[in-house]
Amino acid sequence: MWVLELLRCARDGQPLNHDALRAFVQGIAMDSIPDYQAAAFLMAVYQRGLSDADTAALTLAMRDTGRRIDLSHLPQLKVDKHSTGGVGDKLSLPLAPWVAACGVPVPMVAGRGLGHTGGTLDKLESIKGFKVGLTTEAFVRNVTDLGVAIMGQTEDLAPADRALYALRDVTATVESMTLITASILAKKLSEGIDALVLDVKVGSGAFMKDLDSARALGQSIIRVGHQAGTRVRALLTDMEQPLGRTIGNALEIKETIAMLQGEGPEDAMALTRALGAHMLVLGQAAESLEEAEALLDAALADGRAWQKFRQMVRAQGGELSAIDAPERLPMARHQTVLRAPEAGYVQRLDAYDLGHGAMLLGAGRSAKTDTIDSAVGLHIEAPVGTAVAAGDPWLTIHHNAPLTRTTLVPLERALGIGATPPTPRPQILEVLGD
Amino acid sequence: MWVLELLRCARDGQPLNHDALRAFVQGIAMDSIPDYQAAAFLMAVYQRGLSDADTAALTLAMRDTGRRIDLSHLPQLKVDKHSTGGVGDKLSLPLAPWVAACGVPVPMVAGRGLGHTGGTLDKLESIKGFKVGLTTEAFVRNVTDLGVAIMGQTEDLAPADRALYALRDVTATVESMTLITASILAKKLSEGIDALVLDVKVGSGAFMKDLDSARALGQSIIRVGHQAGTRVRALLTDMEQPLGRTIGNALEIKETIAMLQGEGPEDAMALTRALGAHMLVLGQAAESLEEAEALLDAALADGRAWQKFRQMVRAQGGELSAIDAPERLPMARHQTVLRAPEAGYVQRLDAYDLGHGAMLLGAGRSAKTDTIDSAVGLHIEAPVGTAVAAGDPWLTIHHNAPLTRTTLVPLERALGIGATPPTPRPQILEVLGD
Repeated sequence: MWVLELLRCARDGQPLNHDALRAFVQGIAMDSIPDYQAAAFLMAVYQRGLSDADTAALTLAMRDTGRRIDLSHLPQLKVDKHSTGGVGDKLSLPLAPWVAACGVPVPMVAGRGLGHTGGTLDKLESIKGFKVGLTTEAFVRNVTDLGVAIMGQTEDLAPADRALYALRDVTATVESMTLITASILAKKLSEGIDALVLDVKVGSGAFMKDLDSARALGQSIIRVGHQAGTRVRALLTDMEQPLGRTIGNALEIKETIAMLQGEGPEDAMALTRALGAHMLVLGQAAESLEEAEALLDAALADGRAWQKFRQMVRAQGGELSAIDAPERLPMARHQTVLRAPEAGYVQRLDAYDLGHGAMLLGAGRSAKTDTIDSAVGLHIEAPVGTAVAAGDPWLTIHHNAPLTRTTLVPLERALGIGATPPTPRPQILEVLGD
Repeated sequence: MWVLELLRCARDGQPLNHDALRAFVQGIAMDSIPDYQAAAFLMAVYQRGLSDADTAALTLAMRDTGRRIDLSHLPQLKVDKHSTGGVGDKLSLPLAPWVAACGVPVPMVAGRGLGHTGGTLDKLESIKGFKVGLTTEAFVRNVTDLGVAIMGQTEDLAPADRALYALRDVTATVESMTLITASILAKKLSEGIDALVLDVKVGSGAFMKDLDSARALGQSIIRVGHQAGTRVRALLTDMEQPLGRTIGNALEIKETIAMLQGEGPEDAMALTRALGAHMLVLGQAAESLEEAEALLDAALADGRAWQKFRQMVRAQGGELSAIDAPERLPMARHQTVLRAPEAGYVQRLDAYDLGHGAMLLGAGRSAKTDTIDSAVGLHIEAPVGTAVAAGDPWLTIHHNAPLTRTTLVPLERALGIGATPPTPRPQILEVLGD
């Protein structure tokens, strides 16, 4: 009867009994609550939302279905970053070692790509030997020794979140502010972090298509984070176009290496540096963003950031030869160049279309069970703002299978050329929170 | 993917694809759609409702998961009655044979009681030998030969409705106008009827507590019935107090017998007669309600209604000795009389409290798996409007177990005594539809 009472309250938008909610979430993790009751709960929450207090209770209940990583032996504040997902968004890869190189430990539990968005774990796995499936003990050891580790969600980390996420995926309840908040934070709060920088993507290639919903999600996570005692800062950032020049797993690792050697594309470098600065401030390694940026610049210039990445790769089983000589990373058999159909300025490179096209090439998954081809992807030859002549290359497609119309249609549609240069858009739209 | 698209449309209140809806409902009946997707659908529909066109499509899809009873060999129009459920509502029992005795066949698929409301099947089963579990063939034969049969929902009748109803019960999605409409009509449209009289109860003992929601349900069923080609008339009737003098299975059979012999309580007789008149008009056995009432009065006066009931009981295996000598019906071991605590007029006999008290005695089920005691129940000694002296009996409790405070509390609370006679309330509040 208490389950029905909980469902009735969720259904009617009434406050939830937190003991009942906790037992319900525990039952989901232990498979003693049937899926149909969990599904009804998810759809009710999708429709009615939850108060901040109830969202926080849900989040903590989800966190507490699993183990909490204990990093309290490290004297520093531990800080992580989470992105809501975008196209070409490899920023975690240079960011985590870069911040760690500045003295703030980064224990990062990352995810896989789905649909048009890529995933940090998939990208790392294009480095031969790299293991994302660490034990919690190895994860703690690496964060302790190196200040950084990136792994996938283990079985014992917020298992209710995994169960609920799988159910949301098949019940059309993914796109719920409340459920997204709880899912992100339940995992992040299991990591033993003190603070979190959230990169909420906005635009065609993002989950949130408009600024208002991105702001609402950022604020929701900040408020619930506070209730759970974790400081959160949210950056709302542009995702109308991909980040950097590459989309695809090995291609993005190559770009990561370039970035850590100070040679990355300007947009990806600038945003990674900004995110890192906020992390250093939250981690109390710097008192201001300016001071933090100086620390980051120094760690990049003297190679500490790059060395930290190499240490992380080695510690997680990856072959250093692959990153020291990036031409040894997986490479697709065919390169096909798309050319500008007319002269003008590149005004638009639609992130969704490019991400979707890359997925169709095999760089991503349309279903969770799809396998990924590390080598395939896209290289942007003419970023937004470039002046092109008719016939100039604008995109190189790295592929292993013959190209089909199905794949080419979204790619060709992604390009917008106009007579005038595009109005520059800010990369960071807003900063919210602590 | 089509299931997710259907769920997204239901979730967002968008029109549903009827082919997809039909395949979804078929999948529920065949157990190929997982319960969690059905549960998410139910909660979405609970929250957003469905258009009339979509509710009709859902209803017909549910009906078509099972067999449709074919009564087309009978030249008359077939008419059924459905009540949304009340306390002391034994009206189907005298009504069905009474209408059949006037020449309109009544193929009735009835239900069981749950919570504070009683069920027609439970009442019939207090007649020794009476079988409510007819095969469809026996049901058709009895309707053909006698003009009347009352049975429970068979396995092959709208199986999607049974599956969905069971799921609604455990997902807090019972109280949905759309889902109630589809559930009632899917079953009724399987019966091979041409028209339906709906008795929508309103008040404390009813599912619908206020006139507005009762009217909305009536109108919803009328509109969807029309879309499915079935004429529906809905009577909104008072359920603040129980119908008749008895609550409990064998007690209500006794009252049914009295009614069919022209000796029933005035309120139950009047409403049964009104419902029957509407059925005869819809069945085209009478051109007006007055003409229909004259037919009913004649069939009652000359014993045809009573004989039709006896024929039905015999045809369904019931022992005639039990109804010819009602003192042989199950009888509880103990009778306890409650007495008026003060003098005055009985102003209120709360239907919910009395129904709930009767359930606690064993006359009803708090869970579907509970068993029923046919013998126990309540007899109202002082109906609303009666002038009582302090110490006058107002209720006789028929019980087999010792009475507890838990049972007595709702019963004692049901009685309201005032200094003045209560304002008479109309029994039929509104008539809607054809």
